[in-house]
Amino acid sequence: MMSRPVHGGNLAWAAGLAHCAPAELLDFSASISPLGPPRSVRAAVQADFLSVRDYPDPAYGDLRRAIAHHHKVPIESVMPGNGAAELLTWAARDLAQMETCFCLSPGFSDYDRALQAFGCVSTKLPCFNASNWQESLLGQSLDLEQCGLLLNNPHNPTGMLFDREQIRSVLSRVGLVVVDEAFMDFLPPERSQSVIDWISEFENLVVIRSLTKFYSMPGLRLGYAIAQPKTLKRWQTWRDPWSVNTLAISAGIAALQDTKFQRQTWDWLAAANRQMYKSLAAIPELSPLPGCVNFFLVACEKSVTALQENLLKRHRIYIRDCMSFEGLGDRYFRVAVKMQDENLRLVRAIADVLPHLPEASDVI
Amino acid sequence: MMSRPVHGGNLAWAAGLAHCAPAELLDFSASISPLGPPRSVRAAVQADFLSVRDYPDPAYGDLRRAIAHHHKVPIESVMPGNGAAELLTWAARDLAQMETCFCLSPGFSDYDRALQAFGCVSTKLPCFNASNWQESLLGQSLDLEQCGLLLNNPHNPTGMLFDREQIRSVLSRVGLVVVDEAFMDFLPPERSQSVIDWISEFENLVVIRSLTKFYSMPGLRLGYAIAQPKTLKRWQTWRDPWSVNTLAISAGIAALQDTKFQRQTWDWLAAANRQMYKSLAAIPELSPLPGCVNFFLVACEKSVTALQENLLKRHRIYIRDCMSFEGLGDRYFRVAVKMQDENLRLVRAIADVLPHLPEASDVI
Repeated sequence: MMSRPVHGGNLAWAAGLAHCAPAELLDFSASISPLGPPRSVRAAVQADFLSVRDYPDPAYGDLRRAIAHHHKVPIESVMPGNGAAELLTWAARDLAQMETCFCLSPGFSDYDRALQAFGCVSTKLPCFNASNWQESLLGQSLDLEQCGLLLNNPHNPTGMLFDREQIRSVLSRVGLVVVDEAFMDFLPPERSQSVIDWISEFENLVVIRSLTKFYSMPGLRLGYAIAQPKTLKRWQTWRDPWSVNTLAISAGIAALQDTKFQRQTWDWLAAANRQMYKSLAAIPELSPLPGCVNFFLVACEKSVTALQENLLKRHRIYIRDCMSFEGLGDRYFRVAVKMQDENLRLVRAIADVLPHLPEASDVI
Repeated sequence: MMSRPVHGGNLAWAAGLAHCAPAELLDFSASISPLGPPRSVRAAVQADFLSVRDYPDPAYGDLRRAIAHHHKVPIESVMPGNGAAELLTWAARDLAQMETCFCLSPGFSDYDRALQAFGCVSTKLPCFNASNWQESLLGQSLDLEQCGLLLNNPHNPTGMLFDREQIRSVLSRVGLVVVDEAFMDFLPPERSQSVIDWISEFENLVVIRSLTKFYSMPGLRLGYAIAQPKTLKRWQTWRDPWSVNTLAISAGIAALQDTKFQRQTWDWLAAANRQMYKSLAAIPELSPLPGCVNFFLVACEKSVTALQENLLKRHRIYIRDCMSFEGLGDRYFRVAVKMQDENLRLVRAIADVLPHLPEASDVI
């Protein structure tokens, strides 16, 4: 038996517990849109299949132009990566040069992997409401100019959205600020709190985005960083010249142009998020946090590891336990928002198994 | 105008010079088989397209099993990467811990990029015949136990094949030996000089392989390292969990099982290599080195940068200049072996433009 995975989306592990094929699972563990990949992406990948015979363009001209156009930033401020995760590795190498790097807790565990890879132990900022991390940071006795900050907005796993003015208030004080906006595209433009348009103003700001959650293509690996060119040129000397595959290039260009898919996603999510929150909150043992995007963190009075196992074995439904999120342990789970009938299946399955489960243990 | 690329296969750059679309170029600059990608790979990628909706399995179980089976090594000794180039980055991080790292000269320029990324300046071993690098290495006054060696076999760009006993002789003396066997699969099993089967014997040995040159899919990005598990587990803490995309996984598994394609490639290359060598050697200004695989390094009495430019502008044929290979400069070019009619087109085009070119300059 494989050991418990530290990330969601580990279908091989979950299928082993459920005694079924990975494709038979209903996966709520990875926060991926249920609507994609868009037809435009599939068509582009099929049409461009033979591009695999060539090396990717090391300058990634077409893809960077598409991203630059989408965000109205200079092409020199754009660097695509083999998933946002690859770019986090290089961001962490910069952050590791600082005296310490602040991270929100709970937070995405791959941040610590990336920081530790370059010898940096992070300092945690507690984050159970939208403003306490910032107060805690600005109250530190350290010289913040010599420190880094790595946070995501919207925040994973709580689903909170921070007002970008909060980030502005720390940008003038903290030496290097990396904002992972992996889920920002789930918010329609009028609700976005992206700080991408501040890039030219702050040389200590790096924004990392993902194209795989909103467009349902995490298997293709595609993310990008937006920062001042000096930062990106340094990262380029650290990695090999061909880190983004040619099919991801085609997919990314098609996805960014698919405004119809974007509108469909915002419409679906507005309704599905509201309905799912209500259904989860209606179960007495559960207390969902009011998440702004396509996942919910849910406090649970029963043991979540037992809940996860029972949902897998009895319903082939896979939820994300929070054992790898500091401070959450056995009392929380995270679920993606999927199509309404799937969300309903989840809520019914939870209601079915919950009565038979032990209380949450205090194992953290 | 983009500056001269340091690697082959930069179609965007070459197409700009040739004033045509990248697809209209006849590309001899990247040493990729003209036979692929195999139909089995295309079928696997198409059948598995929807795997892009899921994260790659971070344990890469199916792919690692296929590689382990292919080489008859334990699965724990296998680590797939986002191209061999990604794995070279992590190998270089280990090599950079040594007092110095020896590299053959001329050699693949990305080795120096990777070593410098971790603060290591390489020490060059001249390599103009198959044995002098080894004599030069063993004659060093340094404590070789504290040094690294990074070499490729077959050697790029000369096409030489080193006897693996030469590598054995240094394995017991040098602290860490990384052998890049990116082109070894072009040799049929009976001619292979791979050191993969020595992995369990030498904990200071790492072998890196590519699946993209033989199977014509560099755009998909897929390579793997074979080493003792301790080394690979360390690398895993340095990189993110999902560096190989799901379509590359499907492609790799299909490719390794395609024994028919493997046999076809060996048959094609045996004939095409012989014929191309003869045709190049028949041109008075050219002296090809007798390469063992799917490319030739060719000494040229005329200016190679002028030759490259003329072939692009007048014939839309793209050859690899050697300006980024130390010590070669304007007097050498490298060409891939392609289908016989394409090779003939190249040779005729060279014969057409050579008389009009200036002598090679001494710019190195």
